[in-house]
Amino acid sequence: MKLSAIAMALGTSLPPGVTDREIAGIASPQGADGRQITFLAKKDFQAAVASSRCAAVIVRKGEAVPGKVCLETVDPYVGYAKIAQVFEDLRPLWGKGSAPSAVIDPTAEIGTGVSVGPLTVIGTKVRIGERSRIGAHCVIESETVIGADCRIDSGAVIRSKTVIGNRVIIQSGAVIGSDGFGNARENNRYVRIPCFGNVVIEDDVDIGAGSMIDRGNFESTVLRQGAKLDNLVHVAHNVIIGEDTAIAAQAGISGSTRIGKRVMIGGQAGFVGHIEIGDDSFIGAKAGVSNDVKQGEKVTGYPARDIMTLRRIEASEARLPELLKEVKRLRKEIEALKRR
Amino acid sequence: MKLSAIAMALGTSLPPGVTDREIAGIASPQGADGRQITFLAKKDFQAAVASSRCAAVIVRKGEAVPGKVCLETVDPYVGYAKIAQVFEDLRPLWGKGSAPSAVIDPTAEIGTGVSVGPLTVIGTKVRIGERSRIGAHCVIESETVIGADCRIDSGAVIRSKTVIGNRVIIQSGAVIGSDGFGNARENNRYVRIPCFGNVVIEDDVDIGAGSMIDRGNFESTVLRQGAKLDNLVHVAHNVIIGEDTAIAAQAGISGSTRIGKRVMIGGQAGFVGHIEIGDDSFIGAKAGVSNDVKQGEKVTGYPARDIMTLRRIEASEARLPELLKEVKRLRKEIEALKRR
Amino acid sequence: MKLSAIAMALGTSLPPGVTDREIAGIASPQGADGRQITFLAKKDFQAAVASSRCAAVIVRKGEAVPGKVCLETVDPYVGYAKIAQVFEDLRPLWGKGSAPSAVIDPTAEIGTGVSVGPLTVIGTKVRIGERSRIGAHCVIESETVIGADCRIDSGAVIRSKTVIGNRVIIQSGAVIGSDGFGNARENNRYVRIPCFGNVVIEDDVDIGAGSMIDRGNFESTVLRQGAKLDNLVHVAHNVIIGEDTAIAAQAGISGSTRIGKRVMIGGQAGFVGHIEIGDDSFIGAKAGVSNDVKQGEKVTGYPARDIMTLRRIEASEARLPELLKEVKRLRKEIEALKRR
Repeated sequence: MKLSAIAMALGTSLPPGVTDREIAGIASPQGADGRQITFLAKKDFQAAVASSRCAAVIVRKGEAVPGKVCLETVDPYVGYAKIAQVFEDLRPLWGKGSAPSAVIDPTAEIGTGVSVGPLTVIGTKVRIGERSRIGAHCVIESETVIGADCRIDSGAVIRSKTVIGNRVIIQSGAVIGSDGFGNARENNRYVRIPCFGNVVIEDDVDIGAGSMIDRGNFESTVLRQGAKLDNLVHVAHNVIIGEDTAIAAQAGISGSTRIGKRVMIGGQAGFVGHIEIGDDSFIGAKAGVSNDVKQGEKVTGYPARDIMTLRRIEASEARLPELLKEVKRLRKEIEALKRR
Repeated sequence: MKLSAIAMALGTSLPPGVTDREIAGIASPQGADGRQITFLAKKDFQAAVASSRCAAVIVRKGEAVPGKVCLETVDPYVGYAKIAQVFEDLRPLWGKGSAPSAVIDPTAEIGTGVSVGPLTVIGTKVRIGERSRIGAHCVIESETVIGADCRIDSGAVIRSKTVIGNRVIIQSGAVIGSDGFGNARENNRYVRIPCFGNVVIEDDVDIGAGSMIDRGNFESTVLRQGAKLDNLVHVAHNVIIGEDTAIAAQAGISGSTRIGKRVMIGGQAGFVGHIEIGDDSFIGAKAGVSNDVKQGEKVTGYPARDIMTLRRIEASEARLPELLKEVKRLRKEIEALKRR
Repeated sequence: MKLSAIAMALGTSLPPGVTDREIAGIASPQGADGRQITFLAKKDFQAAVASSRCAAVIVRKGEAVPGKVCLETVDPYVGYAKIAQVFEDLRPLWGKGSAPSAVIDPTAEIGTGVSVGPLTVIGTKVRIGERSRIGAHCVIESETVIGADCRIDSGAVIRSKTVIGNRVIIQSGAVIGSDGFGNARENNRYVRIPCFGNVVIEDDVDIGAGSMIDRGNFESTVLRQGAKLDNLVHVAHNVIIGEDTAIAAQAGISGSTRIGKRVMIGGQAGFVGHIEIGDDSFIGAKAGVSNDVKQGEKVTGYPARDIMTLRRIEASEARLPELLKEVKRLRKEIEALKRR
């Protein structure tokens, strides 16, 4: 690919004389060779970029690296993401079409350009949209619908009646549509509650490896457009996750909780059931959230509190042992004063 | 199914004239149509039930919803669970019998009415009881015994010599019988300790998606009758989980810890090894438990403390920054008094 | 196996007359029969060993159990680990060679003595070293290299271009080489960042069931020699884990963090990205680590603090409610003094 094509993809211009440079990929400043471009997203990497053998560098508008061909963009990290997508290997890992060993029910409708890896099982009445790439050893159960340009990685399990949009990525080991954890208690024993709902995953959602998404009781568990989930995330039945919300690894969301749009959720955070988390809020790593969170609010800790309040409490905690001693001293001195 | 049959399943009676109503399922108050019943488990849903198109509603004994056919029960949530089970789809997802693509060792004994999904592997000397339903892509390793009426969902892995009772559910992505995490340390390097034990799962246990149950070192890791595990739970080697204990998602139990009967364990709680958790105790979400917990005790937090004590500490914490200032003021005033 | 061979494996000697005893295995003191040996690693088990039917007992140098044949070693727990390995069943679970149902690409190079279980998929240009044992239903994607004497358990997924050393164990449900969680944000939406790196796993590493190891962005995520991971551990892209570091279940390590050598990490601990954890440090269970940790430092809690400091803070916390009351009393008494 010519450097001019990359400049075009970034919506930027180039100095004369370099537009025909042949670019083979993108790499880190240290790793880039003369046929790769790199990027400068943080000042810390200035020196590494300066000594890089890269063919060109994506920089912030107005910045320059002496001696380097610079591609100016509003946000070089976004530029990096876009060019990385340009160089992403989209060939089906297991070859075109369906592997001979895949077990595909004759009632399934497989779109044109779809690839299905070895030993993948596709159930009755499944529909898969154009160009979606399904890995090896996946299970796609009956009546599930998958959109176009999706990527389902080896070993993912998508249970029955799941509805998946376009450009969705579901990584290895993820399970979509498991039963929710619902039990009524009678005479100290549990009566299991079967689930009749499903999971709905909208366009552009990514689900990390080993994440578990339970189906709804009657209605759907919903992941709205652009939601991004890291590895080993637990999403319980009837949860709704809003547009463009990001959830880091090992976070867990209990039943019927609604997460708003553009929420950022740190790793290992946990949410009780039946609460509402407002749009554009921030939930710190390891936070334990047991109450509603307002729009734009930033909370962390367990119990989750406003982030500035918590930092003050934490700072005070460090002074607690000394405080106890000081109060003892005050007590003594007051007793002495009283005796005067 | 006639409404009279549902009333009978709940052990309740009906007003005259409605016993022949044909009921097709159970649904939420909002979702129910004229052929479905619903339930009223919380006062909050009173209005939703009142305006529901449902054919009938399960209510608490002595309650009534004007204009609705009411089925009175001791606990309408339990009633809901029971009727949901009545309408649960028990047909094998992949058809009757064993899928032609399943790889079943000739020494395996498969009970009558068992269904086995595509590409499931069943090893030597495995025994599976009557009517159990095995999904697609499961692995059931050699010498494992599975009882009657179990459900093993697509993609579950059950390692060798596991013993499973009747009516057990193991969801997708769960692994039963992995090796425990045991390592002796010699000269700063680890010497791995192989495990010779197995996992024993008694009747009516449910195991959620992606949960990992390690086999015992010499003896068995045991999940006793009626224990219910949510998703992504970790159970280490030699753990014993008592009857009717419920463990929410992402909780983890370290080696040789014994959990009593009817314990309720919140999500993301963690337990060190070699401790005893008493019957009927309650462990809050995210609790870190490093000591024994007495029968009936309710603990939470990290370190785990009595729940009321912890709530008082948390309330005090919020006042810490102000307390520090107040103590500084007291110091000044005492100094002033001393100078008088 | 003769008892003399076991003594030799432990580098110890035997009293005369017992060297020819035939030993069939190792067991717990309570479980051992007359053909099994046991071990005494903790004083607590002295009585159990004394009443054991065992054929011999591994003890600490200089210790003795009356009436028992004792094998003296520096560390009887290490001795137990070594003898357990002697008795480990190394036969391939699914028979010798490759199962007929395995789908192995003709370009794959499978070493001598390798066993491959039913329905395992092996991609193009994969290389597997001698004697490695691959379970059923594994996926080993293209260009992955696996060394000699490895054990890959049923249902593990190893994604493309992973490099694995010798004697590595990867348990069921683990995923190696999933994409990292990288997203750039543009106008409140995420732009996904594809990963071009891989995962490198050195010799003698163990990875527990359901653990997820992401590939690097450009370079490699690396697990160095002898690292031991428990179940459901999350390792993000570009993380480096040092030699002989042990990570307990459900811990999570964010992107680009470097963990040193011989670090001990407790269960459910979490690490933010881009920090350095020094050699020989100790990270307590459930710790939340957001800053560098120095060599040899012991931290725990969230925020993670020096372990002794934290214990003092925790002890003070318990006295907080009383402290608040005491400060109120001091205030009153000072006011009274001031009025004098």
